Amino acid sequence: MTGDFPNNEIAFKNAPASSRQSRAKRRSRSLSASSTDSYSSGSYSSSSEDDGISPREKTQTNSKGFSDFCVSNINQAAFGRREIEIAEQEMPGLLLLKKRAENDKPLQGARIIGCTHITAQLAVLIETLRALGASVRWSACNIHSTQNEVAASLAEAGIPIFAWRGETEEDFWWCIERCIMSDGWQPNMILDDGGDATHVLLKKWPETFKLIKGIVEESMTGVHRLYQLSKTGKLTIPAMNVNDSVTKIKFDNLYCCRESVLDALKRTTDIMFGGKQVVVCGYGEVGKGCCAALRGLGAVIYVSEVDPICALQACMDGFRVVTLESVVRSVDVVITATGNKNVVNRQHLDRLKNGCIICNMGHSNTEIDVNSLRTPELTWEKVRKQVDHIIWPDGKRIILLAEGRLVNLSCSTVPSFVLSITATTQALALIELFNAPAGRYKQDVYLLPKKLDEYVATLHLPTFDAHLTELTDEQARYLGINKAGPFKPNYYRY
Amino acid sequence: MTGDFPNNEIAFKNAPASSRQSRAKRRSRSLSASSTDSYSSGSYSSSSEDDGISPREKTQTNSKGFSDFCVSNINQAAFGRREIEIAEQEMPGLLLLKKRAENDKPLQGARIIGCTHITAQLAVLIETLRALGASVRWSACNIHSTQNEVAASLAEAGIPIFAWRGETEEDFWWCIERCIMSDGWQPNMILDDGGDATHVLLKKWPETFKLIKGIVEESMTGVHRLYQLSKTGKLTIPAMNVNDSVTKIKFDNLYCCRESVLDALKRTTDIMFGGKQVVVCGYGEVGKGCCAALRGLGAVIYVSEVDPICALQACMDGFRVVTLESVVRSVDVVITATGNKNVVNRQHLDRLKNGCIICNMGHSNTEIDVNSLRTPELTWEKVRKQVDHIIWPDGKRIILLAEGRLVNLSCSTVPSFVLSITATTQALALIELFNAPAGRYKQDVYLLPKKLDEYVATLHLPTFDAHLTELTDEQARYLGINKAGPFKPNYYRY
Amino acid sequence: MTGDFPNNEIAFKNAPASSRQSRAKRRSRSLSASSTDSYSSGSYSSSSEDDGISPREKTQTNSKGFSDFCVSNINQAAFGRREIEIAEQEMPGLLLLKKRAENDKPLQGARIIGCTHITAQLAVLIETLRALGASVRWSACNIHSTQNEVAASLAEAGIPIFAWRGETEEDFWWCIERCIMSDGWQPNMILDDGGDATHVLLKKWPETFKLIKGIVEESMTGVHRLYQLSKTGKLTIPAMNVNDSVTKIKFDNLYCCRESVLDALKRTTDIMFGGKQVVVCGYGEVGKGCCAALRGLGAVIYVSEVDPICALQACMDGFRVVTLESVVRSVDVVITATGNKNVVNRQHLDRLKNGCIICNMGHSNTEIDVNSLRTPELTWEKVRKQVDHIIWPDGKRIILLAEGRLVNLSCSTVPSFVLSITATTQALALIELFNAPAGRYKQDVYLLPKKLDEYVATLHLPTFDAHLTELTDEQARYLGINKAGPFKPNYYRY
Amino acid sequence: MTGDFPNNEIAFKNAPASSRQSRAKRRSRSLSASSTDSYSSGSYSSSSEDDGISPREKTQTNSKGFSDFCVSNINQAAFGRREIEIAEQEMPGLLLLKKRAENDKPLQGARIIGCTHITAQLAVLIETLRALGASVRWSACNIHSTQNEVAASLAEAGIPIFAWRGETEEDFWWCIERCIMSDGWQPNMILDDGGDATHVLLKKWPETFKLIKGIVEESMTGVHRLYQLSKTGKLTIPAMNVNDSVTKIKFDNLYCCRESVLDALKRTTDIMFGGKQVVVCGYGEVGKGCCAALRGLGAVIYVSEVDPICALQACMDGFRVVTLESVVRSVDVVITATGNKNVVNRQHLDRLKNGCIICNMGHSNTEIDVNSLRTPELTWEKVRKQVDHIIWPDGKRIILLAEGRLVNLSCSTVPSFVLSITATTQALALIELFNAPAGRYKQDVYLLPKKLDEYVATLHLPTFDAHLTELTDEQARYLGINKAGPFKPNYYRY
Repeated sequence: MTGDFPNNEIAFKNAPASSRQSRAKRRSRSLSASSTDSYSSGSYSSSSEDDGISPREKTQTNSKGFSDFCVSNINQAAFGRREIEIAEQEMPGLLLLKKRAENDKPLQGARIIGCTHITAQLAVLIETLRALGASVRWSACNIHSTQNEVAASLAEAGIPIFAWRGETEEDFWWCIERCIMSDGWQPNMILDDGGDATHVLLKKWPETFKLIKGIVEESMTGVHRLYQLSKTGKLTIPAMNVNDSVTKIKFDNLYCCRESVLDALKRTTDIMFGGKQVVVCGYGEVGKGCCAALRGLGAVIYVSEVDPICALQACMDGFRVVTLESVVRSVDVVITATGNKNVVNRQHLDRLKNGCIICNMGHSNTEIDVNSLRTPELTWEKVRKQVDHIIWPDGKRIILLAEGRLVNLSCSTVPSFVLSITATTQALALIELFNAPAGRYKQDVYLLPKKLDEYVATLHLPTFDAHLTELTDEQARYLGINKAGPFKPNYYRY
Repeated sequence: MTGDFPNNEIAFKNAPASSRQSRAKRRSRSLSASSTDSYSSGSYSSSSEDDGISPREKTQTNSKGFSDFCVSNINQAAFGRREIEIAEQEMPGLLLLKKRAENDKPLQGARIIGCTHITAQLAVLIETLRALGASVRWSACNIHSTQNEVAASLAEAGIPIFAWRGETEEDFWWCIERCIMSDGWQPNMILDDGGDATHVLLKKWPETFKLIKGIVEESMTGVHRLYQLSKTGKLTIPAMNVNDSVTKIKFDNLYCCRESVLDALKRTTDIMFGGKQVVVCGYGEVGKGCCAALRGLGAVIYVSEVDPICALQACMDGFRVVTLESVVRSVDVVITATGNKNVVNRQHLDRLKNGCIICNMGHSNTEIDVNSLRTPELTWEKVRKQVDHIIWPDGKRIILLAEGRLVNLSCSTVPSFVLSITATTQALALIELFNAPAGRYKQDVYLLPKKLDEYVATLHLPTFDAHLTELTDEQARYLGINKAGPFKPNYYRY
Repeated sequence: MTGDFPNNEIAFKNAPASSRQSRAKRRSRSLSASSTDSYSSGSYSSSSEDDGISPREKTQTNSKGFSDFCVSNINQAAFGRREIEIAEQEMPGLLLLKKRAENDKPLQGARIIGCTHITAQLAVLIETLRALGASVRWSACNIHSTQNEVAASLAEAGIPIFAWRGETEEDFWWCIERCIMSDGWQPNMILDDGGDATHVLLKKWPETFKLIKGIVEESMTGVHRLYQLSKTGKLTIPAMNVNDSVTKIKFDNLYCCRESVLDALKRTTDIMFGGKQVVVCGYGEVGKGCCAALRGLGAVIYVSEVDPICALQACMDGFRVVTLESVVRSVDVVITATGNKNVVNRQHLDRLKNGCIICNMGHSNTEIDVNSLRTPELTWEKVRKQVDHIIWPDGKRIILLAEGRLVNLSCSTVPSFVLSITATTQALALIELFNAPAGRYKQDVYLLPKKLDEYVATLHLPTFDAHLTELTDEQARYLGINKAGPFKPNYYRY
Repeated sequence: MTGDFPNNEIAFKNAPASSRQSRAKRRSRSLSASSTDSYSSGSYSSSSEDDGISPREKTQTNSKGFSDFCVSNINQAAFGRREIEIAEQEMPGLLLLKKRAENDKPLQGARIIGCTHITAQLAVLIETLRALGASVRWSACNIHSTQNEVAASLAEAGIPIFAWRGETEEDFWWCIERCIMSDGWQPNMILDDGGDATHVLLKKWPETFKLIKGIVEESMTGVHRLYQLSKTGKLTIPAMNVNDSVTKIKFDNLYCCRESVLDALKRTTDIMFGGKQVVVCGYGEVGKGCCAALRGLGAVIYVSEVDPICALQACMDGFRVVTLESVVRSVDVVITATGNKNVVNRQHLDRLKNGCIICNMGHSNTEIDVNSLRTPELTWEKVRKQVDHIIWPDGKRIILLAEGRLVNLSCSTVPSFVLSITATTQALALIELFNAPAGRYKQDVYLLPKKLDEYVATLHLPTFDAHLTELTDEQARYLGINKAGPFKPNYYRY
């Protein structure tokens, strides 16, 4: 179980105390499909009423009499189906994969336990996996993020799903176990987001764990836990880290943040960007995306960086590289995108000018030291959902978004197209691990093979009416590569 | 009374049947502060409850016993005051004018009847006018656009205001007349938005009209009516067309649309712009703003144009100039920004591809022939506020925003900064007309003097921490201009 | 005779002591086709050998025995012809006009004296005018700018041309008079660039002057002289100011400078633009063009401005508006684009940092106070053509380009396409004046009618494979305009 | 010996028949400092006169009587010194390294043989190495690229240098051997560019080779040869591949090409970019740089790609991804940037429209099949240095630049700043290998340690007045990294 939710200690007991900046950043990105906020404004759904009864105490069956599931309210299925249909329209790559592979059924015989965020986009993935031959059982990787209507419609479609919004911690583990334990059904694949299903299976059903053909893990946290298992010799089966595939990472960070930074700020503050002075802390993929978008609307941008290579890139892209200290009194907006902690501290906050907007695009809720603002002399005034004014004794007020949590997830939406990239990557990783000849993958954590990474991209090109050029035999020979790819060495930086 | 509201025939009886494209565009822009939609999402206000009783039947007094007003509910004053305070923070130019001129009181003796949209930003203008010495009486220029809380807080502040959301047509005229008729108070200035106050005064109180020192008119419609009066010899007093001042027009069109096009599309459709093919119909200021913003996020843009000069500009800016026909089958988004009618007709709509988004940034609701879609074989499905799916018999669906009305007003917000520009322009025009020596202005319609246009800009530069360079005496002599401006000839194009 | 050449006092005796900034700027732009420098690097020609004999002392005939011309060396005709052919390829608009009007011969009966820069592009214009029916006689408007090979090829083609590079002042006037005086040929049109032919005709042949049907004047200087004549009642015939037509002015300033600023700096200094701090003085069309180009390559840009409206535009485009003083110590490049004088003075120059590059894109050679650098304590070192290092006693050196003259003309080239726009404008103005019904034009200076301005644009659209949209009858009626244009009111700003 | 020079078979006998696209591209980039062309236009030098006598037959001594060198003409030393001084001004990072390390003398005891292009920038590197304590002997890695004046000034400074422009192949090897053989001096380090010095030492002085502490190799070709040696077990000493360091590769490709593509096209064709349709073949770093620059000037850009990931990036950056076939008839410019061969073949060339410009920014001279144009029915016409018109029987002409060789090297310049990055990388690699504790590097080829890569960037930040932010102890702990870096994992993509 991963997430921004500090009340779930299990999720964090193995947290990456020593994870690197880039990992941290990626980790936060891997939650993009996950937080409650990210769907509240983005989906077409109205929030459903809660009847206050735990789903575990309800007896529900779908219209065909099927009852091997536990969701909030099976009656919401129709509404969830419409959500899924809308999501499908923006997940062309995944649907194309489904269409191409439907007859081959490359997952025939695969029995997958899934533990991910339960969203309309996930539903499209599940139905794709089934179309490719897999049987699945599914639970949620986050107690807050389940779209109940979607869960209902999956149940209606006959899928054993165990997930609802607002699970207790005990519910959480119960759901995972219900996925694993099923008469006459033994999993042979895991699709995990955070490592919790893997953890449970390994701890409680070690014999079943050994029979698993492969684990596909999406989140940074889960990947970190896999590397720990590997280091300590406990990873007895192959696992694939899809978090670091090129295509996924570019879309999760650069492209997605380029779009969402403007959206999140507009929806919350109606700010006019033209001429505004903005400092972006961090010039990794996320910071690059933010800067590109802001420049497009005429903002004046400063960048702060700790890494000289990224700093030099900022220079060459035309941004002044400064310390936060040197501009903190004059900027109109502060955006953090570092993956680090306390990048903006109380001293900075004290110096911000009246009306300054501050928000976080980077890692979880650590980048801005929001706690330092919870002192008696400062007044908090909630002026809008996700918007707080913090007022200093002299009347100065700053505008804090999403209480320092990820503003693009809290106040904007993640396009289904980005989620299509991720889901396609997951599906291909499952196919690869399930079908790989003996010996190709050992007891280790693997990156997605570049050829599959390229295939994810290929599947999404028709959306843009993009036409690839094919190498001639002579050219392929000249370059010493296969005509079908991979086209680049592994260390290529794109 | 101007607006998008076809049920009010009076507003349109003098409508510009022969107005030119650019005027039309500007006209729609002058409504930017006006429609109901534009404030519904933008302001911090929650919609207030309506008790169903007409304000004209209520007896209300403010906390000081003042009762020369008619608003929805005086008890909403506190809430309205907060709205006004928030608006003030983004109207730096107007506040600076207030501060600079407060001691001079340049409007001492001015008795202004105002007829405009009643919004928080307007309240800041009214209070500025009063601080400069004016006494005012005010009504709404639109039956739908009044922010009731703001009207209440103006009443609480002792301002004779007659306006509420949802006036009947009869109410509308009654309110204007209540502004004009007041014992012992005779107007000598008019601030109008649409020409209705001017119209009423001229028709019903011709003697009072003759004593007016000047009319300041903001809207295209009102300006058109003034030119008509002038042509027929009925304009016996000077009037100032502030609609066409340089600063106002650039902010209303280019800069405002550059910001709002992305916002309106995101809020309604959550579209990812990267790689999307978009056709923008029209490359005037609005189209230029749209194209600049979309390019910043990686869209592929086509432009259609009828004017060869604008078309050549599009070429030089790197956009392919095409006919709508030639791209209509392949684009992902269609945006109209022409000021023309039926730019997108049913033939075009029939050819759009599945999932295409279509919206209007240009003139009122004429650009897309939405009526042509109201035929039996097409199914309309409202999927969200301001978002309709139109479904063809073969299952193709297109996504129509705001039913073809101005999408940036309907689905995004107008920044207070833009409204500050407009309000400052209006205030300076009033000061100029009120203080001009006899003979400077005759019975005609004038553009804002360039020097004042420049002053509006000057007042807004501190927001950006921008520092002007001053001409030396030698330089001013060399250029043959005054050191204090105006700096450019009237025909300069910026 | 216009130009940067102070030794010709006549050209400047009527110089615009009180011309406004924008005019000044335009004036300098109108020289874009004129200075020696602008062709030295740009044309394909090798510099021809000079035999030291004045052309006036030579007896030359072309291959057909024609001798009514005076050029440097008729034998260079073949080389000049090739230059003309190359120029034709990039003057599509003019050739299209030629093709469309060739049969109509709208200039049948026109007898034009021309006095302009003699370049390959001018030759294309002359031949177009002849194809449309005109007979012409031509001289140079600048003693330095004639491309001798081109003059030779015009002579070879039977055109009475009197021009060579390096004329004396006496030669200059002699050439103009040779154009006017010709047995049995009396001019009825003037195409002038600087007003010298107009001046001579009016002074020496006042009776002939009265019979002229129209003057077409391209340069700011010439236009200024015409307005002076008009003011003093001496302009007895209509004249057309083509300098201020929309299309021409955009191409001469914004688009042309956007391209040439990078080119001029690269060719002279090989500077890498990425990350460089640049201050651009002036944010008119020229400054806007410079800033756009520099941003494209990753420079960090500051703008200084005196005009608050232009300053506000710079803010909204994302540039910091500063005084030159505040950044002069830290920038890497200073570019002037103001049309003003002494914008960069010795105090600024003293503060520039070591290695700073300074150049002028604006007005003539006045913007940088270069003379202030000619003091004993500073050492000048010419390191390359058009590149001087000025060295301070402490070893600091700054890099001055083109000695403060227009760097884009001195060190880059003007694209033929820009010259095609100008030439087409001139041709259409001649056709208009020659064919206008009596009374349309009186004894005054006129701007090019908007419809013709639009036609110039139309003629150049095919170059970009741009396709205009045509208004339907209904739409034209709705907008109240003619389907064929003009499409915008005169005050429209583009 | 590397280069574009097919007459030197030795250089190519080990050529990477099977090298990958990216390698090939990088290889061509590593020549950026090398070809004759690249300096012909870029340097301040005038070409010196050649006396026709081989330097090997001359007896020369410098002003101090030193004669252990062989250059074209020692008398050119003063001129070369000035070139070096100019280069120093744009090599701030290298000079900063020199300043910081001068007292430590980290290369004390190092005896380096160098075999690289002999340019002003190289001279700055050599003098830096000497200031850090090294003694050196140097030869040229290319028979055409030596700047004779620079070689002279190095000789004058007492450096044993053996290099001149226009060496024969025999001269070439003689020079290398003269570096190696020197009484009482035995090399212990190699700085190589192409692998020729390494090759000679290994073949002819195998015992000396074994004593070498490390090889630093810059070029792709040389790196390829090292990997071959390593594979066959012949590499008995550590080598460092500096070709693939992050900082170097970004500057050699993305940033350098972004600047030079415009410059090369302008200098050769004076093309106006605005509105021009350009197809860029390949969207790697080079293609990305080209596209960014061209967009900045308003070109309409198409991209062709074989790699779906790069294609998807092009989409997200707003470019249409097409096959060359589909646009070849309509584009104005074709630019190759693939690293592949025959990307533009005769069939494409036959279809180009009249006046189309075609050039290569990618790999050597293979990308455009220029040989296919050398057929009898086509006429070649050289219109300018590096510019050929190829004329079809029907009169169509296309404009071929640099005969298909690298147009940015042939027709533009490589900024000294880029060369400073490379030289600093080389110096740091030498220091690292020379001082590394035993065992750190074995008999293998290594990438530059990330920490040093970051240090190269750090040394170049002051040029941009960029200020790095320092991690706090708490932050470093949180990220699990050292405060001094490295800041990113090795697989980070920047």
